[in-house]
Amino acid sequence: MTKRDFLAMEDWSSDEIDALLALAVRCKRGEVAGGMARRVLAMVFMDPSLRTRASMETAMFLHGGHALTLEPGKGSWTMETDVDAVMDGSTVEHIIEAARVLGRYADALAVRTFPKGSDWAVERQDLTIRNFARYCDKPVINLESSRRHPCQGLADALTMREHLGETAAKRFVLMWAWHPKALPTAVPASAAIAAAHLGMDVTIARPPHYDLDPDDYAVIRGLARRRGGNLAVTDDLDGALDGAHAVYAKAWGSLERFGDPDAERALRDGKRDWRLTEERIRRTAGGAGIALHCLPVRRNVEIDGAVLDGPQSVVVDEAENRLHVQRALLLELIGSREP
Amino acid sequence: MTKRDFLAMEDWSSDEIDALLALAVRCKRGEVAGGMARRVLAMVFMDPSLRTRASMETAMFLHGGHALTLEPGKGSWTMETDVDAVMDGSTVEHIIEAARVLGRYADALAVRTFPKGSDWAVERQDLTIRNFARYCDKPVINLESSRRHPCQGLADALTMREHLGETAAKRFVLMWAWHPKALPTAVPASAAIAAAHLGMDVTIARPPHYDLDPDDYAVIRGLARRRGGNLAVTDDLDGALDGAHAVYAKAWGSLERFGDPDAERALRDGKRDWRLTEERIRRTAGGAGIALHCLPVRRNVEIDGAVLDGPQSVVVDEAENRLHVQRALLLELIGSREP
Amino acid sequence: MTKRDFLAMEDWSSDEIDALLALAVRCKRGEVAGGMARRVLAMVFMDPSLRTRASMETAMFLHGGHALTLEPGKGSWTMETDVDAVMDGSTVEHIIEAARVLGRYADALAVRTFPKGSDWAVERQDLTIRNFARYCDKPVINLESSRRHPCQGLADALTMREHLGETAAKRFVLMWAWHPKALPTAVPASAAIAAAHLGMDVTIARPPHYDLDPDDYAVIRGLARRRGGNLAVTDDLDGALDGAHAVYAKAWGSLERFGDPDAERALRDGKRDWRLTEERIRRTAGGAGIALHCLPVRRNVEIDGAVLDGPQSVVVDEAENRLHVQRALLLELIGSREP
Repeated sequence: MTKRDFLAMEDWSSDEIDALLALAVRCKRGEVAGGMARRVLAMVFMDPSLRTRASMETAMFLHGGHALTLEPGKGSWTMETDVDAVMDGSTVEHIIEAARVLGRYADALAVRTFPKGSDWAVERQDLTIRNFARYCDKPVINLESSRRHPCQGLADALTMREHLGETAAKRFVLMWAWHPKALPTAVPASAAIAAAHLGMDVTIARPPHYDLDPDDYAVIRGLARRRGGNLAVTDDLDGALDGAHAVYAKAWGSLERFGDPDAERALRDGKRDWRLTEERIRRTAGGAGIALHCLPVRRNVEIDGAVLDGPQSVVVDEAENRLHVQRALLLELIGSREP
Repeated sequence: MTKRDFLAMEDWSSDEIDALLALAVRCKRGEVAGGMARRVLAMVFMDPSLRTRASMETAMFLHGGHALTLEPGKGSWTMETDVDAVMDGSTVEHIIEAARVLGRYADALAVRTFPKGSDWAVERQDLTIRNFARYCDKPVINLESSRRHPCQGLADALTMREHLGETAAKRFVLMWAWHPKALPTAVPASAAIAAAHLGMDVTIARPPHYDLDPDDYAVIRGLARRRGGNLAVTDDLDGALDGAHAVYAKAWGSLERFGDPDAERALRDGKRDWRLTEERIRRTAGGAGIALHCLPVRRNVEIDGAVLDGPQSVVVDEAENRLHVQRALLLELIGSREP
Repeated sequence: MTKRDFLAMEDWSSDEIDALLALAVRCKRGEVAGGMARRVLAMVFMDPSLRTRASMETAMFLHGGHALTLEPGKGSWTMETDVDAVMDGSTVEHIIEAARVLGRYADALAVRTFPKGSDWAVERQDLTIRNFARYCDKPVINLESSRRHPCQGLADALTMREHLGETAAKRFVLMWAWHPKALPTAVPASAAIAAAHLGMDVTIARPPHYDLDPDDYAVIRGLARRRGGNLAVTDDLDGALDGAHAVYAKAWGSLERFGDPDAERALRDGKRDWRLTEERIRRTAGGAGIALHCLPVRRNVEIDGAVLDGPQSVVVDEAENRLHVQRALLLELIGSREP
């Protein structure tokens, strides 16, 4: 019997994802208690977190378990990720040992690791999370890697189901937003995958040079088609928003300038108008489309405060749903069958 | 029904405070078990802590609950506190979203936020803690803000009751102490409010230019008078100590030079004699007055080691009482009625 | 009745250590549940950790208790360790107050404190951990101090018993390894003490100028002889490895150049061949001796990846055993007698 990891939504079958979402709904309704007595989740945060840490820790506690947090470089050892490294530099602990050892203490390992390098050809392989999964003999959960943020994707899916009801053939727009920094593409890719899972018609509105990785497009398109939807990519933001049922505003950096902040900034210059405003949210279907964001959001930069504070924003529900989908995921991966 | 926050002792009625203190006594005696099953407290520490973090975490655990800790800028995102900010700078998460989201995961939110700015006219509004309370729909607990440290005040009150018995008309001296840095006024204000609540005659002994905020004086005086005591302010330290029953030594910076460290340091120069020494503690009533401090204390700078290690020091009891008053506070705010 | 600390293995009698190891075996087999309800362990980490923090936190949780973590200088106050300090500098909290206060919140205090100073004559007194023990009225557990890492020693002993069976008269080699930094001697000293406790013939293979403290040699030799073994020190690494049953590879800095990194580095230069290679591990008894390391290990610098990933490496078992020996230790020190 092999252990099961959760590194990307598309690694699991659609039936498995639907079962998770159904269990999340039952968790949210208060119908699922216990299941994690004496269970330990070890979390390794190589990057900052608010929702992820708070919701995972709460998820374990609510079911009787415990989540512990290690922060390499901040309280825990700096980590080496190159499998073949001769470690005579500044990194102290190899992820091989960290993965093996934490697998002895904990029932599952959860890892956050943002891209750090300068070469997308390397980063797109998502080696850090994959090596954690390879060397740990317990389930490994992706808390956002270079390529994916699948717990966020699950929460996005649950939130759209809650607010839109039947999602098939409804229109989902992932809109690029300006941001002072070049952010990773894990969240936008995962949000579009979530929408594809729901059978929605997915439109990605982004300026030239801001395409997601071609493989991401292939995954989104393939999944959308299997589930009855489709994928379109456009640079006509306002046109895309017309009649949309859900708008996911999110900043990300150009992969064409990955690892070159100055060049990337030059590409971004002049695009501050790519922002979800009240005027834009009114373009949505019936003027009532929902606005999503993974948070943290740059207020009045990615999304205007008036939208975030208005009735169409579901960002707080979306953040809450992180808790419930993760309860379901943890119960599925490491829960006991006893009540 | 509106939620109830705990931002300042004076926000609650004297009867409510007395009920809290009575419940704290029962907690300390071991008469109160449980009450926090499945309850989560989210703590946001924007500044360092030892007692507060350890005692809150212990308080939740002892009753079956769980406290989680987030540290903006150290493991969690840097936070924007300006409600109208256009977030194109370095802050990543707005407290509006943080407050709303944590209110979804947790049953209460507790926040530590020291003054950071350079303008007392702004800091005295205590906007960060007040905005957390405004945007979170669960109870918000102040773990020390720019103006108040009410959990410390509760512990101070309990400690004085334990050691002094009847406190009415007994003499409480808040003495300014020299310190290498200009510290906030939240603790001295809260300690004097606690003494006022106990009906004590409050004397604040401080050098010229070291007055607390006029509003603090008004709150202390008003509360003291309602409870049968009074407030005096003096620069005669030794005279104030003569016959005192409780001495609270504490450093704070001059509000007249707030945000101007060099000018403030010049004011402080030559005042290292403002220190609680053995000679001074012997001036107290019967030579047996108690010495209080919120901790951390600068040994041999604010209070001499001989005093801290001597029989009149109650600083460790005071720190222990943080645990018990917070158990009472948490049970009151978010405890279940079931055992 | 006086409280009992765990600062060094040799502070406890051999019978007490054997009883701990026996309880650890029962914990590992799943034969010991509960015992820590409402028990709190306060951990103070003045230095980084992965295994120690994760395993202590897990140990407390598995038996119903709770471990909380404070990190002075990172979320908690910077700490003063000089008992007589006039605290007018940058340290904010004295360990005297920290020890006293945490003893009020917690049932035991655990502290990690690496040597920081430049003078081995001072550091060898291990004053920080000893002062925590002196001023805290609850049991204090050493999570690695300047001189000792006794929880690691317990895990080393358990691991060797598991893998070697009868250990009496078997050969244990502590081999110095090159490392880019001058590391402390607490781990190698504690590993040799553990082997001495097991009655093994201990050989320390190190280059000239890399002796452990003379007192360490005396403790190791004395204990080894009482338990039927012995101590030898050599600079013939390959000769020492011939026929060894257990090899503990570990880097440490020269005490002769303590606090002088440049001079120490000059001593280390040219010694990169002091590394546990596949060729060297084949020199062991029957070519099948076990390889130990406390972790984190510098891959391909202290020990080659092929050895760490090979069948003779027990480093992950050793790390797992940290959990079980600490469960036993905590149950012994603060466990309740009720189930």
